[in-house]
Amino acid sequence: MIIQLKKEINNKERTTITSTLTEMGIDVYPVKTQRGIYFICTPKKEFDIRKIGHLKGITDVHRVSGNHKLVSHKWKVDRTVIDCGDGVFIGDGGFAVMAGPCSIEGEEQIEKTVEALLANGVRIMRGGVYKPRTSPYSFRGLGMEGLSLFYKACSENGIKIITEVMEATQIEPMMPYVDIFQVGARNAQNYNLLEALGEIDKPVLLKRGISGTIDELLYSAEYVFKTGNEKLILCERGIRTFEKAYRNTLDLNAIPILKEKSHLPVIVDPSHGIGIRKHVLKMALAGAAVGADGLLIEIHDTPEKAATDGQQTIDFKEFNALMNKLTQLNALLNN
Amino acid sequence: MIIQLKKEINNKERTTITSTLTEMGIDVYPVKTQRGIYFICTPKKEFDIRKIGHLKGITDVHRVSGNHKLVSHKWKVDRTVIDCGDGVFIGDGGFAVMAGPCSIEGEEQIEKTVEALLANGVRIMRGGVYKPRTSPYSFRGLGMEGLSLFYKACSENGIKIITEVMEATQIEPMMPYVDIFQVGARNAQNYNLLEALGEIDKPVLLKRGISGTIDELLYSAEYVFKTGNEKLILCERGIRTFEKAYRNTLDLNAIPILKEKSHLPVIVDPSHGIGIRKHVLKMALAGAAVGADGLLIEIHDTPEKAATDGQQTIDFKEFNALMNKLTQLNALLNN
Amino acid sequence: MIIQLKKEINNKERTTITSTLTEMGIDVYPVKTQRGIYFICTPKKEFDIRKIGHLKGITDVHRVSGNHKLVSHKWKVDRTVIDCGDGVFIGDGGFAVMAGPCSIEGEEQIEKTVEALLANGVRIMRGGVYKPRTSPYSFRGLGMEGLSLFYKACSENGIKIITEVMEATQIEPMMPYVDIFQVGARNAQNYNLLEALGEIDKPVLLKRGISGTIDELLYSAEYVFKTGNEKLILCERGIRTFEKAYRNTLDLNAIPILKEKSHLPVIVDPSHGIGIRKHVLKMALAGAAVGADGLLIEIHDTPEKAATDGQQTIDFKEFNALMNKLTQLNALLNN
Amino acid sequence: MIIQLKKEINNKERTTITSTLTEMGIDVYPVKTQRGIYFICTPKKEFDIRKIGHLKGITDVHRVSGNHKLVSHKWKVDRTVIDCGDGVFIGDGGFAVMAGPCSIEGEEQIEKTVEALLANGVRIMRGGVYKPRTSPYSFRGLGMEGLSLFYKACSENGIKIITEVMEATQIEPMMPYVDIFQVGARNAQNYNLLEALGEIDKPVLLKRGISGTIDELLYSAEYVFKTGNEKLILCERGIRTFEKAYRNTLDLNAIPILKEKSHLPVIVDPSHGIGIRKHVLKMALAGAAVGADGLLIEIHDTPEKAATDGQQTIDFKEFNALMNKLTQLNALLNN
Repeated sequence: MIIQLKKEINNKERTTITSTLTEMGIDVYPVKTQRGIYFICTPKKEFDIRKIGHLKGITDVHRVSGNHKLVSHKWKVDRTVIDCGDGVFIGDGGFAVMAGPCSIEGEEQIEKTVEALLANGVRIMRGGVYKPRTSPYSFRGLGMEGLSLFYKACSENGIKIITEVMEATQIEPMMPYVDIFQVGARNAQNYNLLEALGEIDKPVLLKRGISGTIDELLYSAEYVFKTGNEKLILCERGIRTFEKAYRNTLDLNAIPILKEKSHLPVIVDPSHGIGIRKHVLKMALAGAAVGADGLLIEIHDTPEKAATDGQQTIDFKEFNALMNKLTQLNALLNN
Repeated sequence: MIIQLKKEINNKERTTITSTLTEMGIDVYPVKTQRGIYFICTPKKEFDIRKIGHLKGITDVHRVSGNHKLVSHKWKVDRTVIDCGDGVFIGDGGFAVMAGPCSIEGEEQIEKTVEALLANGVRIMRGGVYKPRTSPYSFRGLGMEGLSLFYKACSENGIKIITEVMEATQIEPMMPYVDIFQVGARNAQNYNLLEALGEIDKPVLLKRGISGTIDELLYSAEYVFKTGNEKLILCERGIRTFEKAYRNTLDLNAIPILKEKSHLPVIVDPSHGIGIRKHVLKMALAGAAVGADGLLIEIHDTPEKAATDGQQTIDFKEFNALMNKLTQLNALLNN
Repeated sequence: MIIQLKKEINNKERTTITSTLTEMGIDVYPVKTQRGIYFICTPKKEFDIRKIGHLKGITDVHRVSGNHKLVSHKWKVDRTVIDCGDGVFIGDGGFAVMAGPCSIEGEEQIEKTVEALLANGVRIMRGGVYKPRTSPYSFRGLGMEGLSLFYKACSENGIKIITEVMEATQIEPMMPYVDIFQVGARNAQNYNLLEALGEIDKPVLLKRGISGTIDELLYSAEYVFKTGNEKLILCERGIRTFEKAYRNTLDLNAIPILKEKSHLPVIVDPSHGIGIRKHVLKMALAGAAVGADGLLIEIHDTPEKAATDGQQTIDFKEFNALMNKLTQLNALLNN
Repeated sequence: MIIQLKKEINNKERTTITSTLTEMGIDVYPVKTQRGIYFICTPKKEFDIRKIGHLKGITDVHRVSGNHKLVSHKWKVDRTVIDCGDGVFIGDGGFAVMAGPCSIEGEEQIEKTVEALLANGVRIMRGGVYKPRTSPYSFRGLGMEGLSLFYKACSENGIKIITEVMEATQIEPMMPYVDIFQVGARNAQNYNLLEALGEIDKPVLLKRGISGTIDELLYSAEYVFKTGNEKLILCERGIRTFEKAYRNTLDLNAIPILKEKSHLPVIVDPSHGIGIRKHVLKMALAGAAVGADGLLIEIHDTPEKAATDGQQTIDFKEFNALMNKLTQLNALLNN
C-alpha cells in the first residue's frame, strides 16, 4: 500500500498518521523524493482504507498488490517523464537516443562524436570513464580526467552526459559533470550503490542484471526510489542464456513487460544486447518497434580502433543510417 | 566441401568422380534433392580442388568451412525461395504471414478464420491437428478428421495449409492435405522424423528447439536437406531461459544470425515466443523490423474459448490491426 | 485422482464404475499396465469419494493433487522396483551400475567390456547402436547388426542390455535383444515414441531433456505409464546452462527431487553430465551420495580410440577404481 | 606470465627488471601480497624467458597461458592453504565446516549455535549482519551491533567468524571482528569491493555469481589477488537455470573444475544451492564426494522461526547427523 502525503504536510499531521498506522499494527516505510512524500505499508492482512483515508495530510491511498510498490504501474497510471534539462526528456513520448563510445578515449574522439550527435539532433552522449572489466588486466577507463574532457565538449554543445558509476564514493566527484548516472549490469544488485543514488537528485539509468529477472530489475529500481530518487530509467541490455552465437541475448520481450508493470521509461541497448556490429542496426529498430522509449548505443569514428567493445560499435555512417530509419519507424509507430 | 553435379549426370561420370575422391581418401555423402545433385565431402585435410574440378559432370566445387554444409550461406549466395504453388511464396522478399488457431476445432472455426485471412490477403493458414502436449491428459488434436475439414475449407479458397507432423508414419496420410509440414520444438532433434521429411517434396518448416542453439537448428535443417529436400524454412519461436515473466523468451537475435549463416528463409512466431496475447502484436512488429521473412501467428475468433493456447492468441480485430501496421512497416523497411 | 481396480475385474463391474463417473461429469482415462488397472480422473471440482469407493471392482481410490498422477509418489508410497530378470534389479535398494561404451563398435570391443563388467560384478551393459548425432555427417551406429553382436556376447554371460531406441518402428526388431529401452535426451518429449514404449512389457529408461524440467520428465514418464508400461526408470544426464566449462551441467539436485516426487527409480549419468573424463569418477560418487539408485556410465578399453564420446569415457582401470570406491560409499550410505 | 621476485628485492634490482621488460615492449603489473612479490606480464608475443630469467631479484618465471594468472594452477602446483589462526585451516586437506544461521538475530541464538558447533568440533561460524535482500522492505540484518554480539560469543569459544561484507566502507569497522570476509553472489563482480578486499590481510571467500561462469569467478579472485591479498577461498552456491523446482541449481561440476584450474580452496554451499531443507544433507554429502574443501551451511535452533532463509536451514539434530555422515565419508574419500 502506498499512502501519498501532501508535500506541505506538517509534523503534527505526519505524527498522527504514523501513530494511527502503528496502532493498527502496520509497519511504515517513509519515503521522501524530489516529487513527493509517501508512506509504504506492507500490512499482513487486508484492512479498511477508510480508517486512515480521512486523516489530514493524506492526498491518496493506493492498494498495490504484488511485490513492487513505488515503481509499480498499479498506483501511478501516468508514465514517468525524466527531465534532463534544456529540453531533453526521456519517456515523454519521444524516442530518446543516447549514443557514444564504449569508453571515453580523449578529446578528439569526444569532439568527433559530439559532431555526429549534433548532425542527427541527438542530445545525450554516452561514454564510460569507469569501466567494469571482467579481467583486471584490461583497460579500465580514464576516470575523472576523462569525465572532465567529456563534460567540457558536451556542455559547450548542449549535450547531456550519461556515464557509469561503480561505487558510492564516486558519486560526489562525478556529480557536477554527469546528467544521468548509469548502473551497469554487474552492479544491478549492488544495493549500497543503489541507495546512495537514491539520495541524489539526478536521473539514474538501471541496466538489467546479467541474468537479472524482470522482478529483480524492478526491485533494484524500488531501492533507489525508496531512498528518495524517482528519476529512474530502466534498460534492457541482453541476458545470459545457453546461446553463444551472440555476446548476450537481447531480450526484447522485457520491453513491453516492463512498461506494463512499471510507470518508468524503458530503454534498449542493442550494442551489448547482440554484441555484433553488423546486426546492431536491426536490433535497434526492433527495440523501437517493440515500444522502447529510447536507445543506448555505442558509436565510434573508427570502431576497429576503439579502446573497448569495437566489435559491437557502429561507425558514424551506420549511425546516420540508423537515425534515418528510426525517425521513419517512430513516425509510423506513433501514427 | 560441396560438389555440385549436373542434373543430367550419367552413371559413368558419377562413378569417375566417386572413385577419384575415394582414391584421394575422401568420404563422399551423395545428396539428391528436388533442385540438384551434390556430393558432400568432409576431407580431413586441405586438398587441391583442381584435382577434381575438371571432371565431367561437375558444375561447381565450393569450399564450405564450418560445420554446416548444404544449408550454409557460404556456398549459396542467393536466398532460397519456397514456392508453395498458386503464387504463394516464402523468402522471395515479401513478408509471408501464416495465421490461424493453435488447434483446429471444427468447421465453423476454420471458416471464420479463412474469412479473416482472405480479408487481409493472407494466403497460408496454420492449425494443429496433432498436438504435442506436455501432459497426456490434455487435448491432443482432431487428427486426420480435423485435417480433412481444414483442407476442404482452405483448398476452396486458395489458402495453403501448414500443420505439425509428429512422427514419420503420419507423413503419408497427411501428404494430400498439407502444403507445409511443420516440425515442432520438441521434435527439433528427432532425426528419424527429419530424415523422413527429407524424402518428400513439400516444404518443411523447422522450429528451433526449446533450448536449441542456432547451430543445432542449422544441423536439423542439414538433416532434411541431406536426405533430399531443400524446401526448408527456419522458425524462431522463443527459447527457455531463467526468466518466467513470459512463456518463452522470443530470441529475435536469432533472425539476423540465421539469415547470415544460412540461405534459408527465417520466420518468427511471436505467439509462442512471448506467450502473452497483449504483447504479441509488438513482438510481431519487432520480428519484421529485425528482418524475418514472415510470421507464424495464432489467431482465433474468440481466443478466450480456444481449445488450446488462448492466452497467447489474438482475435481477428487485433489481427487486422497487426496486418495494417505490418504492411506499413514492411514498406518502410524495404525502402 | 487414481482409481485402482481389481486385476480380475469383470466387464459389468467396470461398466458400472465408468457410467457412475460419467454421470457425475467426470472424464475417465482407463489405464492397463503389467501390474494393474487404473482409472485416471481429472475432475474439475472436489467430489465425495464415498460415492464411488464402495463400487465393486475398486480396490483403492487415491486423491493425487498436482499434475502428475501415475508416476506420483503421492499415491504409491512403495518405490518401484524394476526386475530385469536373472536377479538383476533396479531400485531395490541396491546400486545398479550400467556401464559400457557410448557406441557398439564390434565384437572384440564388446567382449572386452563384458569382461570388465564381470570382473566388477556389473550385470547391465550399455552401448549405442542407433546414435542420435547433432551432425548428419557423424558416425550413427552399427544398427541391428551391432545389436545382434551385442546380444550374443551379453546373453552368454548373463548380462542385461540397455540401448537407445530412436523411433517407434525400431521397437519391434530390437525387442528380442534389448532388456531396457533407453529414450535419449533429444527424444524426451517425442510423445509418439513414448506411447509406443508404453505398449511393450520391457523396462524403459527416460533421460531428462536437454533443458527438460523436472515436471516435463515426470510427464514423459506419465505418457509411458498411461499407455500401459509402468516399468520406468528416470535418468539425470546434465542440463543445458550458460556455463561452457563442461559439456552439460550435471544437475544432482534433480535426484532427491525426483525421488521425492515420484516412486520411480532414478539413475545418474555422469559421463554426459560433466563430459570430462577426469572428473567423471567424482561426479559418479556424488551421484551415489545424493541418493541415486544407480549409474549409467561410459567405459571403453581405450577411450582415446572410441568411435564416439571418447573425451568423457573412462578406461577399465578407472572403472575398477570407481567401482571400488562406490562399493564403500554405498555401504556407508546404507548404514 | 608471472615473474616471482625475491621478498627482499631492493630498489635497484626492481628497477632493472622493470626497465628491461619495458624496453622489450612488455607491460608490467606489479603485485605485492602477504606472501610474495610478482610482476604480471601479458606480452602480445612469445619471447625468450632467458632474456630476463638471469636478472637479480627474480626467483622464478612462469609461463601461464590462459586468461587467469595469479589464481591459476598452472604456475602454483601446491594448493593454497588458508590459515585462520588458532589451528583453523581451510584447504589443508581437512574438510572445513562453516555453519550458522543465515542472519544473526541476537545473543541467545548465537550462543545456542556456538554450542552446536562446539559439540561437533566445528571451528568456523557463519552469520549475516549485512543482508543483501532483493526487496528493500525485507529484514536487512543487525549491522555492526549484531556483529559485536557475534564476536563476543565466538571469540570466547575459539570460533572463527565468516560474514558478508557489502561495500568497501564497511571493511574498516568490521575488521576487528571478522575472520573471513564473504563476498555474496550479487557482488561477485563488484570490482571496487574486490579491490578494497585486496588491500587487507584477512581471508576472503568469494561466492560464484548468480549466473557467474567459472571464468568470471576466477577473474574476481584475480582482482583480489592482484590488489595484494592471496588468502582466497572460492565458493559454489548454485546457479540460475531454467529449472524452478529448486531455489538455485547447485552446480557440483564446478568443484572439480575450479580445483583443476586454480590452486585456491573450493567450498560448497548446499543451503543456497538447492534451497530446500530436507535435501540439504544429501547435497552436502555430494559436495564432499566431489572433492570440496569444505562446507558453508545454514543451521538454526528452530529453522521455522529464523528471520531469513528458514526454508533451507537445517536444525541442530539434522546438523549432528550430517556431521556424523560427513566424517565417515571424508575418511573413506581420503583413504
